[in-house]
Amino acid sequence: MKLATLNNNTPDGQLVVISNDGTRYAPAGISMQAALENWTSFEPSLEAISTALNHGTLAGQTFQTSELCAPLPRAWQWLDGSVYKSHADLMGAVTGMEVKTLEGRPLMYQGLSDTFLSATADVPMASEADGIDFEGEFGIIVDEVPMGVTPEEARKHIKLVVQINDWSLRAYSGPEISTGFGWIHAKPPCSVAPFAVTPEELGEHWENCQVQLSLHVEWNGKKFGHAHGGHMQYGFDELVAHAARTRTLVAGTVIGSGTVSNYEYREVGSSCIAERRGIEVLDQGEAKTQFMRYGDTVRMEAKAPDERVVFGVIEQKVTRPGS
Amino acid sequence: MKLATLNNNTPDGQLVVISNDGTRYAPAGISMQAALENWTSFEPSLEAISTALNHGTLAGQTFQTSELCAPLPRAWQWLDGSVYKSHADLMGAVTGMEVKTLEGRPLMYQGLSDTFLSATADVPMASEADGIDFEGEFGIIVDEVPMGVTPEEARKHIKLVVQINDWSLRAYSGPEISTGFGWIHAKPPCSVAPFAVTPEELGEHWENCQVQLSLHVEWNGKKFGHAHGGHMQYGFDELVAHAARTRTLVAGTVIGSGTVSNYEYREVGSSCIAERRGIEVLDQGEAKTQFMRYGDTVRMEAKAPDERVVFGVIEQKVTRPGS
Repeated sequence: MKLATLNNNTPDGQLVVISNDGTRYAPAGISMQAALENWTSFEPSLEAISTALNHGTLAGQTFQTSELCAPLPRAWQWLDGSVYKSHADLMGAVTGMEVKTLEGRPLMYQGLSDTFLSATADVPMASEADGIDFEGEFGIIVDEVPMGVTPEEARKHIKLVVQINDWSLRAYSGPEISTGFGWIHAKPPCSVAPFAVTPEELGEHWENCQVQLSLHVEWNGKKFGHAHGGHMQYGFDELVAHAARTRTLVAGTVIGSGTVSNYEYREVGSSCIAERRGIEVLDQGEAKTQFMRYGDTVRMEAKAPDERVVFGVIEQKVTRPGS
Repeated sequence: MKLATLNNNTPDGQLVVISNDGTRYAPAGISMQAALENWTSFEPSLEAISTALNHGTLAGQTFQTSELCAPLPRAWQWLDGSVYKSHADLMGAVTGMEVKTLEGRPLMYQGLSDTFLSATADVPMASEADGIDFEGEFGIIVDEVPMGVTPEEARKHIKLVVQINDWSLRAYSGPEISTGFGWIHAKPPCSVAPFAVTPEELGEHWENCQVQLSLHVEWNGKKFGHAHGGHMQYGFDELVAHAARTRTLVAGTVIGSGTVSNYEYREVGSSCIAERRGIEVLDQGEAKTQFMRYGDTVRMEAKAPDERVVFGVIEQKVTRPGS
């Protein structure tokens, strides 16, 4: 099942079920947040709408991506991991800054969750001097998760999978991480691809609680990377259990993987500029690629081998505030 | 003006105006979050109710503190500073761990905001082995703050002042801070004193955008500390401006001061156990005081010199989960 949120000029929008070819929707009558708060009750109805849409017994309506919000336009909690080891190793080697990982514990921080931008919304950034960067990643959304769950139990709470652009301001990343307190300035709101899909919809592309798809990234229309999602050091089941160690996770909590990265980054490219700059430092002694400028665009799409639409496309432009 | 939220079994509760002696309330018809989203429009009506309650032209209703939620039972964003330098200096000296502060920038992390516990709710904690600690602090709540505000502009967005117990699990604090990613396990939900007050209500006890009152803390009925709030290295105006450097702050964002602390901690005591343990390490070579156990209680109250009720009292018990 594929879900999205239609912009109806309310903060939470209107949940819609999307046909699996991504072309038509039918309204669900509630918000995504409301569905997640009572998933067991709503899921069968949503599945029924999905089946009818896909069998053609329900016509649905066509739409433009620009009519959609982020699947969850705001959430009570956004916890972002960083569990592609190739990315952490590279950044550590380049910056000389030891990112200390703890044995058996994924890296995770809590970020801004009051706004998730839509896949097509312009992205106003405070200053070009801030080191504007994209970060392509995958994420999941849970219903309420009790404190202290095991990864096995956590797995059942993963209701939806999403594709995220975790915008980052690199001028602040290093200084903020050096304080130990995590990121405030370095992490403005994320953008999210239009469709949230159930693990079942991903089928063979959801294994070990990881998205087994390549994330195709283009910057200003040029290919930038197509790293594969299936190389997380910890699966999303383990990330959920980690997050819930000392807290109950509120329904609608979004948990991210961190920048998708593979050790073959020289061949497959990267999902963020910082990683490409890191490779340049290793190979050429200094970073050549500059960060984004106002007017730059980024496009991100997870492609199945059969070219099937999965999460839809993120396609955005960085802008000057107020422009 | 003094505000609170009555528990009406909805997630956001019912906003009530409190008489300035803290004994009676009158309903405001909306939630605290709704009021903050449209403060300019609602404030005059709330002030009118307050005036009528205080002049006796509106009788209001008496209540028990246990009928109240936290003033904002959940928020889209909680950003906690750590700006009492005596606390940072002491903890740094004791742990040998350098908390690197950046010139001109307060320390701040984003924490769990989907739940703020009421002043009297029991506090279930995952394990006594986690190093259960209280942290008495002050905080403020803003209406929407534009990205990039100056401290002068930020000041006008400080609509309410609150008193917070930022529960902490010390077994996780050090390991998590060492990763640079901030805290997840170390920071379960905070508790908040029953009344949120306007800066005007604080009068002479609000100066330099700081709470000029002592925070009286008792642990299991014994006096623990009465550090004065007016020693922040950065005022709340500066904390708001810092938070808004690269993001618009959503209405209802709560920003905290971090543990209230004074350099005279040997005389005035502390607002958290970790600080007392630090003093023991300095003076006696090792920490003697253990962290909290199930059944332990903590009481926190900011007292005006005339013994006037300000934020009301936090009085809580730590419990085993599910007990």
